[in-house]
Amino acid sequence: MRRIVLLVLAVCFANYLSAQNQSATWIWYPGDYEVWLSNDMQNRRTERGTFFPPFWKMDSHYVLVEFHKEFQLDKPEEISIYAEGVYNVKINGKMVHGTPSKLKLDKGTQKVTIKVHNQAHVPSLMVQGETVNTSKDWLVTFEDKEWIDETGKASDASGTTYVKVGYWNFNDPENKPSAFKLPTRLEHAVSVTPHKDGKLIDFGVNTFGFLTLKDLKGKGQLEIYYGESKEEALGIETCETLDVLDINNSSPADTTLENSKAFRYVYVIGENDLDFKGADMLYEYLPVEERGTFKSSNDRLNKIWDVANYTMELTSREFYIDGIKRDRWIWSGDAYQSYAMNYYLGFDQETVKRTIYALRGKEPTQSHINTIMDYSFYWFLSIYDYYLYTGDREFIEAIYPRMQTLMEFVLERRNKEGLMQGLAGDWVFVDWAEGLSKEGALSFEQLLLCRSLETMAFCAELVGENKEKDYYNAEAKELKDKIFNYYWNENKQAFVHSVVDGEQSDNVTRYTNMFAIFFDYLNDQQKQGVKSNVLFNDDVQKILTPYMRYYELEALCALDEKDIVMQEMLDYWGGMLDLGATTFWEEYNPEKQGADHYSMYGREFGKSLCHSWGASPIYLLGKYFIGVKPTSPAYDTYLIEPYLSTLEWMEGTVPTPQGDIKVHMDNQTLTLSAPHGVGTLRLNSSIVPTANKGEFTKVGDNLYEMRIDKDFEYKINYKK
Amino acid sequence: MRRIVLLVLAVCFANYLSAQNQSATWIWYPGDYEVWLSNDMQNRRTERGTFFPPFWKMDSHYVLVEFHKEFQLDKPEEISIYAEGVYNVKINGKMVHGTPSKLKLDKGTQKVTIKVHNQAHVPSLMVQGETVNTSKDWLVTFEDKEWIDETGKASDASGTTYVKVGYWNFNDPENKPSAFKLPTRLEHAVSVTPHKDGKLIDFGVNTFGFLTLKDLKGKGQLEIYYGESKEEALGIETCETLDVLDINNSSPADTTLENSKAFRYVYVIGENDLDFKGADMLYEYLPVEERGTFKSSNDRLNKIWDVANYTMELTSREFYIDGIKRDRWIWSGDAYQSYAMNYYLGFDQETVKRTIYALRGKEPTQSHINTIMDYSFYWFLSIYDYYLYTGDREFIEAIYPRMQTLMEFVLERRNKEGLMQGLAGDWVFVDWAEGLSKEGALSFEQLLLCRSLETMAFCAELVGENKEKDYYNAEAKELKDKIFNYYWNENKQAFVHSVVDGEQSDNVTRYTNMFAIFFDYLNDQQKQGVKSNVLFNDDVQKILTPYMRYYELEALCALDEKDIVMQEMLDYWGGMLDLGATTFWEEYNPEKQGADHYSMYGREFGKSLCHSWGASPIYLLGKYFIGVKPTSPAYDTYLIEPYLSTLEWMEGTVPTPQGDIKVHMDNQTLTLSAPHGVGTLRLNSSIVPTANKGEFTKVGDNLYEMRIDKDFEYKINYKK
Repeated sequence: MRRIVLLVLAVCFANYLSAQNQSATWIWYPGDYEVWLSNDMQNRRTERGTFFPPFWKMDSHYVLVEFHKEFQLDKPEEISIYAEGVYNVKINGKMVHGTPSKLKLDKGTQKVTIKVHNQAHVPSLMVQGETVNTSKDWLVTFEDKEWIDETGKASDASGTTYVKVGYWNFNDPENKPSAFKLPTRLEHAVSVTPHKDGKLIDFGVNTFGFLTLKDLKGKGQLEIYYGESKEEALGIETCETLDVLDINNSSPADTTLENSKAFRYVYVIGENDLDFKGADMLYEYLPVEERGTFKSSNDRLNKIWDVANYTMELTSREFYIDGIKRDRWIWSGDAYQSYAMNYYLGFDQETVKRTIYALRGKEPTQSHINTIMDYSFYWFLSIYDYYLYTGDREFIEAIYPRMQTLMEFVLERRNKEGLMQGLAGDWVFVDWAEGLSKEGALSFEQLLLCRSLETMAFCAELVGENKEKDYYNAEAKELKDKIFNYYWNENKQAFVHSVVDGEQSDNVTRYTNMFAIFFDYLNDQQKQGVKSNVLFNDDVQKILTPYMRYYELEALCALDEKDIVMQEMLDYWGGMLDLGATTFWEEYNPEKQGADHYSMYGREFGKSLCHSWGASPIYLLGKYFIGVKPTSPAYDTYLIEPYLSTLEWMEGTVPTPQGDIKVHMDNQTLTLSAPHGVGTLRLNSSIVPTANKGEFTKVGDNLYEMRIDKDFEYKINYKK
Repeated sequence: MRRIVLLVLAVCFANYLSAQNQSATWIWYPGDYEVWLSNDMQNRRTERGTFFPPFWKMDSHYVLVEFHKEFQLDKPEEISIYAEGVYNVKINGKMVHGTPSKLKLDKGTQKVTIKVHNQAHVPSLMVQGETVNTSKDWLVTFEDKEWIDETGKASDASGTTYVKVGYWNFNDPENKPSAFKLPTRLEHAVSVTPHKDGKLIDFGVNTFGFLTLKDLKGKGQLEIYYGESKEEALGIETCETLDVLDINNSSPADTTLENSKAFRYVYVIGENDLDFKGADMLYEYLPVEERGTFKSSNDRLNKIWDVANYTMELTSREFYIDGIKRDRWIWSGDAYQSYAMNYYLGFDQETVKRTIYALRGKEPTQSHINTIMDYSFYWFLSIYDYYLYTGDREFIEAIYPRMQTLMEFVLERRNKEGLMQGLAGDWVFVDWAEGLSKEGALSFEQLLLCRSLETMAFCAELVGENKEKDYYNAEAKELKDKIFNYYWNENKQAFVHSVVDGEQSDNVTRYTNMFAIFFDYLNDQQKQGVKSNVLFNDDVQKILTPYMRYYELEALCALDEKDIVMQEMLDYWGGMLDLGATTFWEEYNPEKQGADHYSMYGREFGKSLCHSWGASPIYLLGKYFIGVKPTSPAYDTYLIEPYLSTLEWMEGTVPTPQGDIKVHMDNQTLTLSAPHGVGTLRLNSSIVPTANKGEFTKVGDNLYEMRIDKDFEYKINYKK
C-alpha cells in the first residue's frame, strides 16, 4: 500500500512541474542511457565479496552527440539549457559565444543545435522555455558530417544520420539521468537471534536492499553472510554473497551497507566486542503501478499469485533481471518472460523498452545476445509481443535498424544446410536439463529463428519496408519447410531434437514440440500426435525449470488442457510454497529433499530462490484463466475467454494501454467491462448465455461468442 | 637544451624503477587508450571561448576487458596488482576472494586472469612480481565468451578473440595512464607593454601552453585575447581564441590559466582596477629525443630548418595535431606528413603508433577517417611508411585487422565504374585551392586508393595472409589499369583531374600527376610529359599550401630537379621568415600583403600560423639533400645520395631504429658513418670518387655507387 501512496505523490509532483514548463525532458542518443545504466547495474554482482561482471561484450554510449530541433516562434523567448557534459550551442547554424545556460531566441525560425560531450556519463540535454523544450521529437546524431568549406560557409550536413532522441521520465533539470537511483523504503527485521559466534537476522521474506545494523559498536572485522535460506546464511563457507567490513565505532551508530544484496536471513559475526542491537533494511524497488490483479476461491492459488507478484516486484529493477541474489544481470530469455508477466501486472512499457535496448547493445554485433543463440531469438519475439500489447509504433521505428543488423548477424551464421548450429563462442542453451544434447543443429533453434523471421517481416511492414518484408517472409517460409523436412518424424508424430551431420537424431524432447503448438505451426493431427507422444509421454525427459514449465503450460493451454495447467500450478508452485518459499525459484525438483533444494551449478547454495522466470502463474492466470489477450495491437481488438476450471469464482483486472479490463466470474455469472477497443467474449457453456447488452452467437459445440464494447459493464448469465 | 637534460633525468628514473621489478608496465586493450586520450585532447579546442569538438564520430574504449597470461614459476612468488577500475582475479581459472592488491602465487603453471571494468577511463592493469609482470606479451579480450555449464565446470573460452595488449611507457604503479599530462617548463614573456585599455604581452615566438599573469590583483572581469600575430591579439572582435575570467584577488597572486592556448602575443584587459605585473607561461611539450639534425653553409636554410623543427615540436603533442591555435585535432593527411618529418627528427615511434590508432578509431566503420576520403588513404600509406622506417612488425600485426575493415568500408563505396566518388557524408578534400572541382570521380582519389591497395597487399604478406595479398594485388592492378584508361590523356601527356558521368574532364591539376611520379607509376616518357606539361606549366593552377607543396617538391626531387627544390625552399619558406614567421603556416601566398596573410576560411585570423604541414623542409632536406632513406624495413638496407645543390657544405644526422647515420659534405669531401645495415652510397661526380674503405662502381653517366658497412667512418674524395 505504501508503494501506491508514493506513486500518487510522484504524479502530483510531476503535475506541479509541468505547470512550470511545457514538459521538457532530458534527452539522449536512443539506447545510450540504457546501455550505460545497464553497465552500471550489471557490474554490481559480487560472488562471495568478489566483483563478478558479465562475460559478454559491454558497450559504451557515444561520447559526443549533437541534438537539434527547429522551432517557429511567434515572439522572442528565453530558454534555459542544462547538459550532462561540456556543450556548445548553435542557433540557425551560428555558434553562440561561450557555454550559455540561458539564451534569448528571436521570433521566427529558430534551429537550435546543441553538441554535448561526456565520457563518464551519457551526454544528455534539457532545454526549457515557454515553447522551446527538449522532447521526444528532437533529433540527434553521433556523426554530424558538417564541415566548413573553403568559402567559409557551413555546408549542409549531408550524410549525417539523425534519429529521434531517447528519453524516459527525467523531467526536472535537477533530476539528472546520471544520478538515477531506484527509491528505497525502510523495512524492519522480524527477529534477531544469537547463534553461535554471531547473530542471525530474519526479515521474514526474501528481500533486496541495503542492510542496516543498528547501534553498531566496537572495533574489528565484521563478517556478514547473506542467505535466501537460513542454511545459506549460516553456511559461511559456501553462501553465495557476503560482506566483510572494518568497523571502528567508539559509540553506537547505525551502519547501512553501500551495496545492495538479496537475503531473507543475514548472519553477522563481529570480531572482539563488536555488537549491534537490531537490524533494518532499505528495501530498494522499481516504482510500478499495481494494475493487474487476481483473486479466486482458492487460497493456495491466491498465495501463488501473490508470491509470483512479489517475485516479479523483486526482479523488476532498473531492468528486468534474472534473479536478485546471484547474477542481477539482464538475460534475454528471462526478460522475455518478465515482459509477458508485466503485461498482466504493471504494464510498465518503459522498463520493457529499456531492457530491450540494453540487451541489444550497440554495433558492431559480434555475438548473440548474452552470447546465447536462443536469447537472440527471444529478443526478436519480445518486440512482436511488445507491439501487440502496447501498439507503440514509435519504438518499433526506433529499434528496427538494430533488429536488421542482429538478423543479419544471425543469418550469416547458418550452416551449409541453412540451419542454425552452434559456432565457436555461441552458447546453445535451450534449458537447464541434465544431458541435453547441444550437438548438431537443434530443431528448437530453427523454430525460434523461424518465428524471429516472421517478426522481422511483421516489423518491416510496420515501418514501410515492403521489400524487406517480402524477403523475411520468404526466408521464414523456406525455413519452416526445412524444419518439417529435417525434424518432423512421421513415425513418432513429433519433432526430433536435432540433426547431426545431416542425420535426424532419434531423440525427442519437449521444447520444439511445445513451442510448435503455441506458434500454431501444426495441423490438428500433428497437434494430437505431439500431445500424446510428447507432452503426455512420461518417457520424454521432464522439465524441471519454471523457465520451460512456462512454455509447457502455455502449450497445454493452447491445447485446451487448462484443467491440467491449473492442477500443475497448484502442485508445482504450491510445492515451493509448501517448502516455505516466499519467492519463486530458478529451478524446482519435487523429488529433492531439504536443503538439497538450494544447490545448483555444483554449488551448495548456487540456486536463485527469487528468479523472474518463477513468476509465470501471473501470465498464465491472466491470459488463460481470466483469459484476456490482445488480438490486434494495443487491445484495439482482443479476446476474453475466461475459464474457471476447478475454481468456484475468480476475479481479475488486466491492464491495457487505455485502462483495465475487469472480469469477475463464478459458476453462473460473469461480469466484465473494458475501457477501450472491441472485444470478443468467448464462453464455453452448456446453455445459451444471456447478457445485459448484445447477443451471443454459437460458434461451436457449447461455444458462444459475443462482441464487447467499451465503457459498459456486462453481466452475463450462463451455465458452465 | 633544457629538454635534453630532462630526458636524461627521465631515463635515469626509469632505470631506477626497472631495478625494482622486471619492467612491469600498464597495459590495456590495444587502441583503447589512444582513443580515450585523443578524445580528451581533441575536445580541448575552443573558438572564442566556446567548446568546439570534432565533427566526426568519437569512439569509446571497451569498458570491461579481461587480461591474461600463463607463467611457469620455479618457486612461489608474490605479486602486486594495480588496476584502473574495479577488478577481479582468477588464478588457473579459480576466482580469488575479494579484490586482492597482493597475492601469493604457487610454483608451477600459473594462469593469471584479471578482469577490469571502467567507464570513465580505460580499464588498465599493472601486475608486479619478481617474474610475473604485465608486459606487451599479455593477452586481452573484450568478449570473453566463457560460461559455466550445468555441471559446474568452467568451459573453455572458445569463440573468444584474444589480442596482444596495448601499452606505452607507464612503468610505475603510481604513474596511471588516466592521469597522463604532457610536461611543462617555465618560459618568460619578452615584453609587457601598455596598450589602450590593457597590456600587450609578447613571448617573442609563437608558443603553446598555460599563461601565467603575475601579481594579478583587483576585482572584476579579465579579458584575455590570444594572437599568433600582434594584429590578432589586438583584434579583440575577431581573434580566434580568448578567455574571460572573473577575478577577485585582494592581494597580488600569480594566476595560471587552466586551459592551454597557442600564442605569441596576449592582450589582456582588466575591468576596474584589475592589474598584473608581468607574464610567464608553462610551455607544454612532448618530450622527444633530438636526433635528426641539419646544418649548412646557408644561414637562411639553417633558419628554415630550425623553424620547421620548432613547428614540429609544437604540433607534436599527445598526438600529431594539425595546428596549435585552432583545431588541435588529429587529421590524417596532416599527420601523414608529421610522421615523415619525425623519421628525420626524433624518430618517435610511439607517437606515430598512437596517432595511427587514434585516427582509426573503432568499429563499426561508418565514415572515412576525419570524414575525408583522401585521409583514409593516407592512413594506409602511413602504415607502409611506418614499417619501412621502423621494421616494427608487431604493430603491423596489431593494426592489420583494422586495415582490413577500413579497406572493406572503402571498397564498398566505389561507384559503378569501380571508382571512388564522393558519397553523402564524404568530404573529398585534396587541397585548399580555389575553385577545385570535387565533381565526379577524381583521378587523385583513385591514385591514393591504388597505393592503399598495394599497401594492403604488402601488409597481408607480412602477417602471412597470402590469399589476401593476392586479392589486394589483383585489385590494385585492375585499378591501376583503370586509372590510365580513364584519366591519362595522350594529347596532354598528363592525367586529367576527373571523370564526370563517364566523361574525361578537360581539367589538368598538379595533384595526381605529381603523386604518380613519386609513386613511380609512370614510364620515362610519361614522366617527362608530366614534368613539362604540368609541373613546369604556369597555366596549371599553382599550389599555395605547404601541405601540397610538400608533395610537389618531392615529385621534383624524384625528377632530379633538386636545385629547383632548394631554391623553392629558400623562397617559399624563406618568404615566411621574411614576414617574421617564428613557426610555419597553414597556407602562404606570397602575393598577399600585411595582415591579409593571417586570414583564411573567411575569417580575419582564421589561418593557423603554426601548422605541422609547414615543416616539410625537415623531410626534404633529410631525404633528398642529406639524402638518406631506407630501401628495406628498419634501414637493413638504405640509400645515401647526398646532394649539395647550391650549398658549400652541409652536415646532418638521420635517425634509424639502431642509431644515427651521420653525413658531412662539402665540394670535395664526404664523411659518413652508419650504425646498422648495409647502405648504398650514390654519388653524382665528375671524377671517380675514392674512399678510405670499399670501392665505387660506375652505374651511369657521372654516377657512382659504393657499399657502406656499419660502424666505420668513411671519408670520400670526389669532385662535384
